[in-house]
Amino acid sequence: MRYLYNCWYMAAWADEVSKGDMLSRKLLDQRIVFFRDSANRVQALRDRCPHRFAPLSKGRVEGDVILCGYHGLGFDGSGTCTLNPHGPLTRAHAVKSYPVQEAFRALWIWMGDPGKASRHLLPALGFVDAAPDTAFSKGYVAGKGHYQLWSDNIMDLTHADFLHPTTLGGGTFTRAKAKVSEYEGKVRIRWDCMNEEPTPLMRSMRDMTGKVDSWTEVEWSAPGIMTLRNGSVPTGTPRELGGSVLNLHIMTPESKDKTHYFFASTRDFAEDNADLNAMFARIRQEIFTTEDEPMIAAQYCAMEGEEFWTLKPALLRIDEGSILVRRRLDRMISEEEQQSPAIHPSDEAE
Amino acid sequence: MRYLYNCWYMAAWADEVSKGDMLSRKLLDQRIVFFRDSANRVQALRDRCPHRFAPLSKGRVEGDVILCGYHGLGFDGSGTCTLNPHGPLTRAHAVKSYPVQEAFRALWIWMGDPGKASRHLLPALGFVDAAPDTAFSKGYVAGKGHYQLWSDNIMDLTHADFLHPTTLGGGTFTRAKAKVSEYEGKVRIRWDCMNEEPTPLMRSMRDMTGKVDSWTEVEWSAPGIMTLRNGSVPTGTPRELGGSVLNLHIMTPESKDKTHYFFASTRDFAEDNADLNAMFARIRQEIFTTEDEPMIAAQYCAMEGEEFWTLKPALLRIDEGSILVRRRLDRMISEEEQQSPAIHPSDEAE
Amino acid sequence: MRYLYNCWYMAAWADEVSKGDMLSRKLLDQRIVFFRDSANRVQALRDRCPHRFAPLSKGRVEGDVILCGYHGLGFDGSGTCTLNPHGPLTRAHAVKSYPVQEAFRALWIWMGDPGKASRHLLPALGFVDAAPDTAFSKGYVAGKGHYQLWSDNIMDLTHADFLHPTTLGGGTFTRAKAKVSEYEGKVRIRWDCMNEEPTPLMRSMRDMTGKVDSWTEVEWSAPGIMTLRNGSVPTGTPRELGGSVLNLHIMTPESKDKTHYFFASTRDFAEDNADLNAMFARIRQEIFTTEDEPMIAAQYCAMEGEEFWTLKPALLRIDEGSILVRRRLDRMISEEEQQSPAIHPSDEAE
Repeated sequence: MRYLYNCWYMAAWADEVSKGDMLSRKLLDQRIVFFRDSANRVQALRDRCPHRFAPLSKGRVEGDVILCGYHGLGFDGSGTCTLNPHGPLTRAHAVKSYPVQEAFRALWIWMGDPGKASRHLLPALGFVDAAPDTAFSKGYVAGKGHYQLWSDNIMDLTHADFLHPTTLGGGTFTRAKAKVSEYEGKVRIRWDCMNEEPTPLMRSMRDMTGKVDSWTEVEWSAPGIMTLRNGSVPTGTPRELGGSVLNLHIMTPESKDKTHYFFASTRDFAEDNADLNAMFARIRQEIFTTEDEPMIAAQYCAMEGEEFWTLKPALLRIDEGSILVRRRLDRMISEEEQQSPAIHPSDEAE
Repeated sequence: MRYLYNCWYMAAWADEVSKGDMLSRKLLDQRIVFFRDSANRVQALRDRCPHRFAPLSKGRVEGDVILCGYHGLGFDGSGTCTLNPHGPLTRAHAVKSYPVQEAFRALWIWMGDPGKASRHLLPALGFVDAAPDTAFSKGYVAGKGHYQLWSDNIMDLTHADFLHPTTLGGGTFTRAKAKVSEYEGKVRIRWDCMNEEPTPLMRSMRDMTGKVDSWTEVEWSAPGIMTLRNGSVPTGTPRELGGSVLNLHIMTPESKDKTHYFFASTRDFAEDNADLNAMFARIRQEIFTTEDEPMIAAQYCAMEGEEFWTLKPALLRIDEGSILVRRRLDRMISEEEQQSPAIHPSDEAE
Repeated sequence: MRYLYNCWYMAAWADEVSKGDMLSRKLLDQRIVFFRDSANRVQALRDRCPHRFAPLSKGRVEGDVILCGYHGLGFDGSGTCTLNPHGPLTRAHAVKSYPVQEAFRALWIWMGDPGKASRHLLPALGFVDAAPDTAFSKGYVAGKGHYQLWSDNIMDLTHADFLHPTTLGGGTFTRAKAKVSEYEGKVRIRWDCMNEEPTPLMRSMRDMTGKVDSWTEVEWSAPGIMTLRNGSVPTGTPRELGGSVLNLHIMTPESKDKTHYFFASTRDFAEDNADLNAMFARIRQEIFTTEDEPMIAAQYCAMEGEEFWTLKPALLRIDEGSILVRRRLDRMISEEEQQSPAIHPSDEAE
């Protein structure tokens, strides 16, 4: 499948890889093993020993080295074979390594040209670090379906009115008519919902019973990183007096039909309320798992392996944001394929 | 796969679709959603929203309209989009609809040219309606294997002597030497079993212990609709004095390797005996599920994806009926492909 | 897939086929049914009735004949149809039969030209028959992965040091530096481990606590038959005074991604110790099932359907034996394809 390669992909939450342990995960069709070296730095290697192709993740970590569990070869984080119990060390025994960064409570991997993997290209998600633990929660869904269907889902929140009517929806997104804009390679979409009934969740969780003004802004950046800012106040109250949440929705492709969906939430009100924090986290995980995932999986299944555009979708105004994202990403991939053909696998390798 | 399109296929038993509910079923490689409108008429639509391809069957029915559960578009039974919460209605948002008829306690769908879908082309199965509930039973098996293997199974009842020796068989079909005939596009096969020991089922269920005369006639019509009439009397008794059953065996292809097998039974004796009715129904469902289905599935599996004729079957006299059916259906499909190429998907779409 | 056809493959342990019963097993992509005739001789037929392709193994054995469970045709061990309840017998109704030999407590099948299937070409495994029951044990693993990965596993026992460190390993194989030789179409590999700590299993099972001398010799012959002789003595003791085991490791391909792994063990010490015998058998089955099988399956999975050589394995000195075996077998298959093209299925049939 076609992917953007020269960019950081979120690979895991940082706490998914503990010292001495390994995490094997498939990203962009490549199976990769993550481990922490003796300095606690995360390393990422192709999860396949160059000798006999056993997955390195079936071995073990010792200090800075991952040891193959089949014949004992050892590789450091650069992919260099530093231990061969059976003979001399040669460069032929290297395994591919990937640049990794640990930031924003997450691990980021660079699947393209390693020479271009600058820390400065990481997305600006400092709010994740800034949030106190009692105002931060995160989750993960192993999603079925192409990752762009998952991005589309966030770029068009009117779906909440129909798919989540008892929690996040209620008709306000649909009535709001979103405004879409582009800015420095990012796509923004914004819903202003004025003087509306509160959503079921506002009512039950935040005791908002009268009419409310709320606004939601999603900002997408490549390859599939979205922040979602949402605030609400009783109608007429100045916005600065209301609380708001700042959420993260990140889609990383596993393959053409599977998606790693990472999400997190922070807020600027009741920041030390651990119970509220846990309740929000639980509800979110439940909605994404029991409502979004089955719908997107069914949608992908109904596409029967066809490409999105081949099926000639009947586009509506609500698709403006997601289509802008799809076109921008398509363009970025095409440009990259022309400029760096070497990092793109040929069609045959698909 | 090649199918006959301009004909009625049985899609479901009528009571599988209740008012306000939906049934999603794949027929001839197409997933279709059935629902009842406010007048209780059954409607059939392609089970895929033209907007974003979510299955409509994951939404809900409201009055005459099926509402997509993802973004709320509504479609009536004609496939017209009658509700778009996000903008104006246009013809582009239509979904394919299929002619449906409710008859003989079943739902019938026309997968070909809708202009040709006449109610007069339904098979003549009025006996199903005429039977009292205590002399009628029906069943369904989701069968593995090509639907023609399932038709073959009914067109050659000698298999009962070997596959069902403790119930329906006993050697009489094999000894009877069937007579095959064609009549107005139908294929008939008839076994006359004179002065034979009764089958185990006759013995246990109908108290027939002495020698019996019995006759069985199967009549096939396209695409896979078979009636089976069977009567038996103590040898020497006039046939008019004996009871008989009139059964239905209908095979509708789901795909090249799956078959919807619908069956029903009526009888003209002990018509008000509900216990006997239930016992027959139970035994039949058990035989078809535990004896026919595993054998046909194994047969299909052993064919390893090859076409029937490619494998050069060693034909016997008992295959006369089923081969006649296969040839006739092949000819009908070929004629239809020439006359109405537009309704046949191209090979690529397979 | 490419296979060697003109040779004996082990198909089953002899006691897997009891009189009157059948065993259906896929070998070299062909499903075969084994049964014993009235003289207790094992017969092997293509497990597919030539009439309607039902698996014969779903029928039953009567005397010398296997009866199809669908329409009652009967076939003897030569594949001749000897019973047709529906008409005359003809040669057209034959099913393919395969030469079979019962020897060394096992069943051997010849998948190539039957005219070349000489009993004299069986491997020389008389030690299996000679062993008393209390010094013989055997096992079977239905293994995932190409059968040559399974052969490789035995041709390079250094894997024991890493994959089985708590039982069979300990570093001695790795330190020993194997010697490889070829002899009359066989490949031999030998490890001499002098003055070493005993392996965990020697320690616990054979009370060897001081330093030991041990030697292990594997001898491969086509298509995938390996004997493994292993002896050990306290360092300095003459070898003749120590006990030794003589084991069998046989890999028969089911298909390109599945392997039948048969193994057995005999020994020349404590030959009447049934408890020790059972304990060895249990440990071996457990190691092969929980350590070797998952590793080889993972290795095969990580190869993602690619050929071994296409992936450019980084070969080490320890691969000498397995590579010699791979090259020899490749050569044998190529020669056979040139000399007997008729017995090799074309690429399309794959």
